Amino acid sequence: MIPSPPARGFPDSEFKTRLARAQAMMAERGLQGLLLLTEPEVRYFTGFLTQFWQSPTRPWFLLVPLEGKPVAVIPSIGAEAMARTWIDDIRTWPAPVPSDEGISLLTKTIGDVIASGQIGLPMGPETALRMSLTDFGALGRGLANHTIIDDGGIMRQLRMVKSDAEIEKIRYVCEVVSGVFEALPTLIRPGMTTAEAFRVFKIACLQGGVDDVSYLVGGAGQGGYGDIISPPTDRPLADGDILMLDTGCVFDGYFCDFDRNYAVGETTDAARKAHEIVWDSTEAGLVAARPGARACDVWQAMQDVLVEGGALGNDTGRMGHGLGMQLTEWPSNMPSDQTVLEENMVLTLEPGMIFEPGKVMVHEENIVVRGGEAELLTRRAPRELPIIGPFV
Amino acid sequence: MIPSPPARGFPDSEFKTRLARAQAMMAERGLQGLLLLTEPEVRYFTGFLTQFWQSPTRPWFLLVPLEGKPVAVIPSIGAEAMARTWIDDIRTWPAPVPSDEGISLLTKTIGDVIASGQIGLPMGPETALRMSLTDFGALGRGLANHTIIDDGGIMRQLRMVKSDAEIEKIRYVCEVVSGVFEALPTLIRPGMTTAEAFRVFKIACLQGGVDDVSYLVGGAGQGGYGDIISPPTDRPLADGDILMLDTGCVFDGYFCDFDRNYAVGETTDAARKAHEIVWDSTEAGLVAARPGARACDVWQAMQDVLVEGGALGNDTGRMGHGLGMQLTEWPSNMPSDQTVLEENMVLTLEPGMIFEPGKVMVHEENIVVRGGEAELLTRRAPRELPIIGPFV
Repeated sequence: MIPSPPARGFPDSEFKTRLARAQAMMAERGLQGLLLLTEPEVRYFTGFLTQFWQSPTRPWFLLVPLEGKPVAVIPSIGAEAMARTWIDDIRTWPAPVPSDEGISLLTKTIGDVIASGQIGLPMGPETALRMSLTDFGALGRGLANHTIIDDGGIMRQLRMVKSDAEIEKIRYVCEVVSGVFEALPTLIRPGMTTAEAFRVFKIACLQGGVDDVSYLVGGAGQGGYGDIISPPTDRPLADGDILMLDTGCVFDGYFCDFDRNYAVGETTDAARKAHEIVWDSTEAGLVAARPGARACDVWQAMQDVLVEGGALGNDTGRMGHGLGMQLTEWPSNMPSDQTVLEENMVLTLEPGMIFEPGKVMVHEENIVVRGGEAELLTRRAPRELPIIGPFV
Repeated sequence: MIPSPPARGFPDSEFKTRLARAQAMMAERGLQGLLLLTEPEVRYFTGFLTQFWQSPTRPWFLLVPLEGKPVAVIPSIGAEAMARTWIDDIRTWPAPVPSDEGISLLTKTIGDVIASGQIGLPMGPETALRMSLTDFGALGRGLANHTIIDDGGIMRQLRMVKSDAEIEKIRYVCEVVSGVFEALPTLIRPGMTTAEAFRVFKIACLQGGVDDVSYLVGGAGQGGYGDIISPPTDRPLADGDILMLDTGCVFDGYFCDFDRNYAVGETTDAARKAHEIVWDSTEAGLVAARPGARACDVWQAMQDVLVEGGALGNDTGRMGHGLGMQLTEWPSNMPSDQTVLEENMVLTLEPGMIFEPGKVMVHEENIVVRGGEAELLTRRAPRELPIIGPFV
C-alpha cells in the first residue's frame, strides 16, 4: 500500500493563523517585532522552502511586526522564490557583499516598519545566531530606537503545536518510512557494508515517496551497537550483528524521526530482551502522552520500565522530543522539562538503554498528542526483535 | 564506467598537518587557542562525522590550543563516536541540560588547557554562532583570564587549500554525478513532475555511489527558468521547458556542487545561445583560474564573455565559490573578492545570466587550481544545450 502524498505548501490561511498567534504573544510580552534568521523560523511565517540554506554565505532576515504582514530582507538570489509566497514586502541586496551583508538594508527596514521598541530574537536553548557575530554587533549599534532582546520562547511555543496540515505531512512521511522499515529484511544481506545498507534504505525511501532522506545514522555491532549517531562505514554486516537505523526523512519540509532495530542472523537473549524492554517503555510513553501531562511525566513513565528492566544507563540525555520542520524540536522528554503537553503536539518517544557495557538499545516512534490517547504516526514496531535472515 | 570510491576517513597525519598549520597561524596572530562550534570546523580537526548536527538541540565545542592536540567538549551522546577519532581528551556533559548546556564544563576546560590570553572564534563573513546568544554571553562573563575575539579568518584560510586526500573525495563525487547528469535524458520524460524528476535524479546518484544527495534545487519553465534555488513541485515537465538541476552530493563528508541544463523537446534559439554563452564563459574562467590570479580576476574573465553575449544581468551576486566540506566555502568569484588563488584550492565556476526578462541560464563546473591550467573535477558539459526527447 503506497500512501498518497498530501498537497505541497499551505493555503495563505495557515500563515495568517500563525501570524495572528505570534502577534498576540508579542503583544503580551511587550515586543514590537520579531527578527528571525533561521530556515525553519523564516519558513514558518512565509512558506519559503529551499535547500539553499545549506550555503553558509548569505544571511536571511525576516521581520515580523506587531501589526501587518512579515517583511523579508533577503539576498537577491531568493527574490523570485520569495515572491511566490504570500509575502508582499520583499527587500533585497545583491549578496554576497561582505562589507555590508544586508545590515544597512535591515537597519533601514526596521526603522521603516517598527517605530521603536523591543524586538525579539530567539536567544535561548536550542537556538543559534545565523549571521556573523561581527554583523550582529554592527546591527545593534546601528539601531537607535530599538533594542534586540530574547523572544521569550515565543518561537518554540508557536511551533510546538502543529496544525492539521502540518500533521498530515508528517504522517505521510512516517507512513512511507514505516513501509520501508518493514521491508528492510528483504533488502539487506550480510556481507553488505553499512554504507551499502544505508544506500539501499535511502533509495527505498525515495522510491516510496519521500523528498529527501535528510538524516540517516545507525550502528551495527556483534550482539549490540555502541553508539547511535554514526555515519556509514565499510564494515560488512555479519551474522550476530544488531543493526539500528535511525532516520529523518522529509516531505515538503516536514520530518519524521524514528528508528528500527534488526538482528542479523543469530542473536543473543540479552539483545532480544532489551528490545522488548524499550518496546514496553514506548508503550508506557504512549499511555502517558496526554494533554496536561508534562514532558517529564512522559520521560518518567518510560524510565520506570527501563529501570525495572535492568537498564545500566542511557547516554542520550533525553527520551524523545518535538518534531516537525526540524528533526528535533522543543520539548524534550527528560526530568527537567516541565512543558505541559497540548493537543496537536507532535513528539517522538525514544527510550534507550545500555543493556550490557558498551551495548545500547534505542527505539523510537512518532506520535501526535490527542484529546485522549496519543495517535501513532509511525506503524508500531514489532515487540520481538526482527531477524534479517537466516542466510543459506 | 563506475568510479571506485576512495577510502573513508583520513590517516592521523592529515589532522596533524592541519593542526600544525593552524597553530602556526595562531602564533602569528597572537591567539592562544581557537574555539570552534560548527560541524565543518569541528570535523576539520577531528574527523568527527555525523548527520546528528541537524538536531539544533545540543552545542558542540572544540578547543584548539596553541600547543598540543584539540580538546573536545561535547554532549555525552557523541562520546563513543568521538573516541574513535584521533582526539584523546574528550569531556562530556549529559546534554540536553538547558540550565547549563556545557558552559561550566567549557569554561573549566578553557582554564585547564589555556592559561590566559586571546581565543579566536570565527566571527566574520559567512560564519554563524552555533550556540545560543544567552549562553555565549554567559561564557564570556565566566572567563576571567581569556578574551574571545574574531579568529582573523584563520579557519577560512586553512580550509581553502585542500589536501590530495580531500580532493580525491571531491573528485569521486563529481565523477559519479557527472555520469548521472549524462544519463539524465534517458531517465526523464515529459509529464513527470519536477518532484518526480528530482527523485529519479537522487536515486541515480545514490545508485552511482554517493552517500547523500544533500542539496538538489532546480528550475523549469517554458523557454527558460526564472530562479535557481527552487524545491520540487507538482508542475509537470512540458515540451518547450528548460530544466536546470543543481546538486550538492556528498561522499564521506565532501561535496560536489554543479548543475546541468536540458531542453525538454523543442527549444528556442535564445535558450540555445544563452547556454553557449555561459559555457564559453566557463571556458574563460578555466583559463583564468591559476595560482596568483585573484577570485575577482576569474569573475572578470567570465563576466566579459557574458557581457559580450548580451547578458541582461545576474541576480546571484557571484559566479562560483570554494567547495569542500560545505556546499559553498570561501572565496567568492566576484568583483570585491581579492583572494589570491593557490594550488589545490577547489572552486566552482558558475557563470549565470538573465538572457530574457525573467529567464536565467546558469552553468557550473568544479575545478582544482593547479600549477598550470586548472583541473576539471566534473566532466565538462556539452556546449550545445542537451535535448531531452523528442517524445513520440
